[in-house]
This record gives sequence, structure tokens and C-alpha cells, in this order.
Amino acid sequence: MSEETSIAEKICLTPVGFVRSTITHPELKADAENISLAEGNQGARDRVKKLATHVSEVVIDERFDGILDGIEEFSHVLVLYWPHLIPQESRSLLKVHPMGRKDLPLKGIFSTCSPARPNPVLVSAVRLLSRDGNVLKVQALEAVDGSPVIDIKPYMTHYLRPEGVKMADWMDRMLEEVGAGQGDG
Amino acid sequence: MSEETSIAEKICLTPVGFVRSTITHPELKADAENISLAEGNQGARDRVKKLATHVSEVVIDERFDGILDGIEEFSHVLVLYWPHLIPQESRSLLKVHPMGRKDLPLKGIFSTCSPARPNPVLVSAVRLLSRDGNVLKVQALEAVDGSPVIDIKPYMTHYLRPEGVKMADWMDRMLEEVGAGQGDG
Repeated sequence: MSEETSIAEKICLTPVGFVRSTITHPELKADAENISLAEGNQGARDRVKKLATHVSEVVIDERFDGILDGIEEFSHVLVLYWPHLIPQESRSLLKVHPMGRKDLPLKGIFSTCSPARPNPVLVSAVRLLSRDGNVLKVQALEAVDGSPVIDIKPYMTHYLRPEGVKMADWMDRMLEEVGAGQGDG
Repeated sequence: MSEETSIAEKICLTPVGFVRSTITHPELKADAENISLAEGNQGARDRVKKLATHVSEVVIDERFDGILDGIEEFSHVLVLYWPHLIPQESRSLLKVHPMGRKDLPLKGIFSTCSPARPNPVLVSAVRLLSRDGNVLKVQALEAVDGSPVIDIKPYMTHYLRPEGVKMADWMDRMLEEVGAGQGDG
């Protein structure tokens, strides 16, 4: 396969459902030049704390009847979703100050978890509290209300839990400051 | 946001790069009705073993100059990619025997890691061995040669490493049988 073929082709997805949540706006604001925290650093701290026990629903479209069967045997699922409130023009950003913090050096978008990225497919491993037909009740999902859902997978240790993980120092510090460090989770 | 709006809209992605690998065909074959293991169960075992030390490259398109800056400070990255050799018609499957094994009961696609799914965005957490400009060298990535890459993220413990994970018994057994159980990884 030539490089050109794989780069040129477009990939089209059809959402399989949506998120129902009391979270109505994203934590990060984004435009064509920057990202910034909607509520500042203290706001982020409060938000992380609240999020830990936040319950939301993932509603799968009824045309996929049966596609969730067996998911209730897993304690955690991986939710892939689309941050639909992030403006299209912010998807061409290449570098940002992480979390919009000017005190941190510019980093490439792929070394951050900014939702403003070329293909903003967001991935979160969350606890599955219960399943009722085509509706999953999950804990600590950051997606805002109405976010299109792209995929649901069981949380598989083999693919998602490597040994010896070391994050960048600036990321460790930033997570600790908002109460999302390894010791806080 | 109404249910209909979020379900109806299409989401289009443009690959940001591709995978360069000596793996040339997917482990699972898929058609409109079934999935099956290309090389049987023993083949899968051999493959899992080889994969653990397999090195491949993720090549990011040069128009994204700088987007990887800082990624080398992380030990692991999350690679989102598209299994381009899985035929379109297999994306409408709703239930399968996991890994094509008829001895296991039918399960909904969302409770399996089958690449034949409505939106086959595959997610893998892999060790980052090195970065050379727009090329990442990674370990244990199962993607076949030429797979379009959708996104690269740093491996963030906060989003990806929940406590108290319990998988379905059939999944635990299946992973153990191919040497990919928690004790084997």
C-alpha cells in the first residue's frame, strides 16, 4: 500500500448513539488559535472531584438491537465519543499550551489530551454501573450531553493496561494540581 | 440536542498517517455473517507471543509538522487506527461468537474486541520506543501494514487505568488460552 493511498482516503463514521448527561459544556474552550479552561484552574479541580462520582447514560440506537449483549459481564467499558461542541476550526491546531496554561511550554497536540485535534475521537475507560436494554449507566464519563457515541468496547487489560507507564513530568504535575494524579484517582 | 440530530449526522475523519509493519494480514477474517481466526487457536497463541516484542512504525504525515513534539516524554502512547482490510459488509454484524469460536456463546459486538463493528476505530496502548521526527517506533502494535492512523494520544493513567477491573469469565478464559491473560502480559 502506498503512502498516498492511506493518507488521502476519508473515513466516515455514523454515530451509534449519544450521551445523556447533566454536563452541558466542555471544560476546555477552543478556537482556531488556542485552548483555555472554561472555569480556570480551581474550576478544573472542582470539576475533576465532581466527575469521579458523576453518572451519565450512553444510549445506543435501537437499530443495533443485541449489540450490547454480554457487556454487563464487564466492570468497565471503553467509550469512544465525539466532542461535538469543539469548533471545526480548532481541529487544525498543531501545538498548544496544555490546558491553555501559558506557564507550560507549547506541546504538540498529540502529546496532549486536548479535544481540539485533527480527529477528535475521545476515549475514556469508565465503570459500567448497569445496563437496561440499549442504555448503559456509566460513572465518571466526561462527555457533554448529546455527544455522539462512536463505539463501545469492553475494557480489555491486554490492550489497555501496559506495565511501567511513565508520563511526562509536566503532565504528572498538571494532573496532580487538578486532583487527578495517580495517587488521587 | 435531540436524539435524531446526534444519530443522523455523519462524522468524517482524515487519516493523519499510517502504520508500517511486517504484519500483512489481520488475525481475524470477517465477512457479512461471521468472524474467524485466520490461523486457528494455536496460530493465535503463536501470534500473541510474537506480538509482545514486535516493533512497528507509526508514520505521521509531514503536513502535521510539530504535532508530535513532547510525545517522547511519555513511555506509552494510545494509537487509534482503522482496520482497512476488514470488509465494509462485516460492519453490520450485531453478534458474533468471540474470536469465531463456536464453543463460546454469541455475544453482542460491543462486548467483544472484534474489528468487524459499526465504526471500527481500534485502540491500542503501546510502548513508545523512540521518535525520529514524524516517525514513532512502537512495540506490540497489532495493526497491519498500511493501516490508516486516526489519532495518537499520550497514555494517560487518569483516563485509562481504572481500579477494580473485572472482565467477563469467557473473555478471561479466552485470553488465557492464547497467552494474553493478565498474568501473561
